[in-house]
Amino acid sequence: MSDFIPVNTPLLDGNEKKYLNECIDTGWISSEGPFVKNLEAEFSSYIGQKYGSCVANGSVAIDVAIRAMKEVYKWQDNDEIIVPNFTIISTAQSVVYNNLKPVFVDAEPYTWNIDTSKIEAMISPRTRAIMVVHIYGLPTDMNKIFELAKKYDLKIIEDAAQAHGQSYYNKKCGGMSDISTFSFYANKHIACGEGGIVITSSDKLIEKVNYFKNLCFSKDRFVHNDLGWNFRMSNLQAAVAYAQFEKLEKSIQQKIKMGELYQELLKDIPAQLPVHKTDYAQNNYWVFGLVLNPDVKFDAKEVMQKLADKGIGCRPFFYPLNEQPVFQKLGISDNIERPISRNLYKKGFYIPSGLGLKENEMYRVAEAVRSLF
Amino acid sequence: MSDFIPVNTPLLDGNEKKYLNECIDTGWISSEGPFVKNLEAEFSSYIGQKYGSCVANGSVAIDVAIRAMKEVYKWQDNDEIIVPNFTIISTAQSVVYNNLKPVFVDAEPYTWNIDTSKIEAMISPRTRAIMVVHIYGLPTDMNKIFELAKKYDLKIIEDAAQAHGQSYYNKKCGGMSDISTFSFYANKHIACGEGGIVITSSDKLIEKVNYFKNLCFSKDRFVHNDLGWNFRMSNLQAAVAYAQFEKLEKSIQQKIKMGELYQELLKDIPAQLPVHKTDYAQNNYWVFGLVLNPDVKFDAKEVMQKLADKGIGCRPFFYPLNEQPVFQKLGISDNIERPISRNLYKKGFYIPSGLGLKENEMYRVAEAVRSLF
Repeated sequence: MSDFIPVNTPLLDGNEKKYLNECIDTGWISSEGPFVKNLEAEFSSYIGQKYGSCVANGSVAIDVAIRAMKEVYKWQDNDEIIVPNFTIISTAQSVVYNNLKPVFVDAEPYTWNIDTSKIEAMISPRTRAIMVVHIYGLPTDMNKIFELAKKYDLKIIEDAAQAHGQSYYNKKCGGMSDISTFSFYANKHIACGEGGIVITSSDKLIEKVNYFKNLCFSKDRFVHNDLGWNFRMSNLQAAVAYAQFEKLEKSIQQKIKMGELYQELLKDIPAQLPVHKTDYAQNNYWVFGLVLNPDVKFDAKEVMQKLADKGIGCRPFFYPLNEQPVFQKLGISDNIERPISRNLYKKGFYIPSGLGLKENEMYRVAEAVRSLF
Repeated sequence: MSDFIPVNTPLLDGNEKKYLNECIDTGWISSEGPFVKNLEAEFSSYIGQKYGSCVANGSVAIDVAIRAMKEVYKWQDNDEIIVPNFTIISTAQSVVYNNLKPVFVDAEPYTWNIDTSKIEAMISPRTRAIMVVHIYGLPTDMNKIFELAKKYDLKIIEDAAQAHGQSYYNKKCGGMSDISTFSFYANKHIACGEGGIVITSSDKLIEKVNYFKNLCFSKDRFVHNDLGWNFRMSNLQAAVAYAQFEKLEKSIQQKIKMGELYQELLKDIPAQLPVHKTDYAQNNYWVFGLVLNPDVKFDAKEVMQKLADKGIGCRPFFYPLNEQPVFQKLGISDNIERPISRNLYKKGFYIPSGLGLKENEMYRVAEAVRSLF
């Protein structure tokens, strides 16, 4: 279909080419290159933390962040980490890969973030940290998280992969925790195809992140005291991410405008739209999600199929982590129901939201959605 | 030092820029892009196997290759894999991460590859595969490997990260095994900063590699039946790797010429030089290594320091895997001595060998090396 509108179209209209050409001209393509270093320094400073460490993607960013925390804070196997039940599997998977136990907390029905009122009941003597994920561009309500972390002496991990440049009151997402992670996947506000970064202000954590992501090379290069991974990011990826970072504020303003237009065009449909604004943040719409009302006869899967037939690419909402077959197989899930995330999966999906999406395409998308009801 | 000669200088004089610009112009930066697909199809065909799967780097290529083999061949935890003792830790580490046991076989003193005469003694009822690594551009003597694999019903894994475009008799390295891996690290014959590929002719193996490297996404996208990783390669990385692949034969010819020049310039020094040619292969000199003769009073570390003082960047040989502190700590190493790899580490190092190295620089390197004795 020639006029198919994909769920994501990136916008690469800044210095991307110029910087890539610089990489080739200078021969700097490896992870030792200057764009990697500059991105680490400037992005961490923008976020309000001291250090950054570029990695291959947002999933491995979480792998290595938790590994570093486990090492530095001397967590034991089977210690527990609170994880939102409504998010990508990379979060809980990193917990499992580090021989820790994810404890799933259901989502809040309107913001789709972790329900902060349900966390305390899940804290045990073995809980070591709370992981928050700022879902789809709207921050988690952090004050409650800060309070619990203080009360129970817990660390905070922020997955800010969906919230580049977003703020909670006046603090940047990724800047409110012991360690945070970002993804630069092709559909992110800062996109370089595959890429990510770990951010922290801790000397000890950044040292461990840099160590584990680089195969635990030591001073005597090929002598290894630990097992790490190769999770390095090349200078090519960093060049594009850096160019995208330069125009982040502009991208965010554009995303908010797009969100406002969709809000207006879709306000009458029988579905819940993203929260546009709270007292702590203006949604910056990483993606524009919809949750069908209970009285709508069809579920998200059927709607996405109907929209695909009209040439509109959509993507489902996340599957509840506690129901993941792999976690059930591994005996990690309990039997407690998480009805909100279950409903979000069943009734939720998102529509084309990339920065490269044109206004006339947004009208076509909205018209197609409206025509279903 | 302004005239410092680094151990590696890449040569990026082909279509690298053109293809990178294409990525930006078309918006294809993600792992779904056309350079990824073309590289997979054409590189695997060049190697003589049916399928390729691009990944983030050469280390994770081994991680996912062994994971796929374990799954498809139904290997059990603690099954054993024969691994060369003289190579990078990524090989044995991937075995360990997959809950398998690496069994280390010492190197052959002249080719520095696994000593094929010492493998059979290390085969047990639990041995499932032999991993070979073609060291520094010279292939392993595979006929003995084929014979053992047949006799004991073992699979073969080839790490061909150091042997792009190399052949054993008339068969390409990476094309003689059940599964093989390549790295496109910045110092490889095909270089894109960070990148790698898994090659196989098995439908089942490639399916599992593609599954595990992409977070085990399923038909119902966010429902996961297994835990995988994000090991995807972006289209940007593939664009550069593809441009480098186009001129691989030319690069190899240049590397052989460079090897011949170093052989000539260094023929009288008290050190063993790489084997230039065997009955099965012409060395294509990924790097040019030297092993100091037993009567030389200083070891590789001292020589590398002296050369660094003269503005020449060198790199040590690999540390024997059986002696790695991490494997001793994990109780994986036995107490059998591997004297050849021990000596290679103590006395071996390599000198600047990148494709971007100029002839006058090679004379300077050789002169600096000769002046030490």
